[in-house]
Amino acid sequence: MSKSLDFLTEALRRLPGVGPKSAQRMAFHLLQHDREGAAMLSRALYQAVDAVHHCAMCNTFSETEVCDLCADEQRDRTLLCIVETPADQMMIEQTLTYKGLYFVLMGRLSPLDGIGPKDLHLEKLISRAADGDVKEVVLATNFTNEGEATAHYISEMLKARGLKVSRLARGVPVGGELEYVDAGTIARAMLDRRSA
Amino acid sequence: MSKSLDFLTEALRRLPGVGPKSAQRMAFHLLQHDREGAAMLSRALYQAVDAVHHCAMCNTFSETEVCDLCADEQRDRTLLCIVETPADQMMIEQTLTYKGLYFVLMGRLSPLDGIGPKDLHLEKLISRAADGDVKEVVLATNFTNEGEATAHYISEMLKARGLKVSRLARGVPVGGELEYVDAGTIARAMLDRRSA
Repeated sequence: MSKSLDFLTEALRRLPGVGPKSAQRMAFHLLQHDREGAAMLSRALYQAVDAVHHCAMCNTFSETEVCDLCADEQRDRTLLCIVETPADQMMIEQTLTYKGLYFVLMGRLSPLDGIGPKDLHLEKLISRAADGDVKEVVLATNFTNEGEATAHYISEMLKARGLKVSRLARGVPVGGELEYVDAGTIARAMLDRRSA
Repeated sequence: MSKSLDFLTEALRRLPGVGPKSAQRMAFHLLQHDREGAAMLSRALYQAVDAVHHCAMCNTFSETEVCDLCADEQRDRTLLCIVETPADQMMIEQTLTYKGLYFVLMGRLSPLDGIGPKDLHLEKLISRAADGDVKEVVLATNFTNEGEATAHYISEMLKARGLKVSRLARGVPVGGELEYVDAGTIARAMLDRRSA
């Protein structure tokens, strides 16, 4: 086998979820059937590593000092929504129900993986939330154990600084049939029931 | 989202088996946790596209005009083994039972996918097999429908030119228990039985 091919196969293994067999299959495919795609991917990687940094305000990926969303004067600067990833942020944007700004953690607290408060740059979040404009922080981390723990930690931290903190409502999903919803979700929906 | 990130996500989708969600996850992972890996993959792709071509003799990936194996004077030049992919070739090399040369088809006949004799560059194989040194061609394409059809087609083509053509033996795999081997394999092993 050629050295460049070995190097390519090894480099492809750096992608998450790609093992030795997949990496080899990908390398063969690109060289045999899609050299144009390989060249395009090479350029895209180079360009992204070079150009993509973190927004100074919300911490998401951005090519400019401040991302487009944070720079948008139309957004409500009194609301700050905290999400784990840019993908989560996009999901919330798609709902068209939120007009405030965001802070993207780029992860979650996960002691088992060695990710503590320092790794999440929570000091950046504190200074962001304490800018004087922000009145309410909406916690929209995932409803997993780690997401909940992260929300709890950030909640305590920000409440201690006098900020109003809220969390996305938990309950039965839209379209959910009680028979097929897990008991934990129904218990939560019962405890959080609202006047109809 | 930043343009470079969109471009990277789109480029990652050119990899086989990578859909929109995986591509996004890969892009986020590389930018957030492994920028070094991203830069390395960029270089590896660029280098492979630039340096890797096809061996003039056996058609496998090679950085030199003729690959190391074809250039090896120790190999038996009267034997030519035909395989579908470089991965298949590596498997045969690992068995240490074959000392001849190879021809790598880089595919198989597959009319449903629009891959006919011309796409496989079979004219390159014919001129290779007719070099005067080759006495026997061993067909080692896969034992799938397409691999068998490819073997049959090549076999007819080369026998018409007076070459001796053989095929890897079919039968019960080593370690196989008859109870768990499929009937087609046992039928084949019965028909091809050898004196013990």
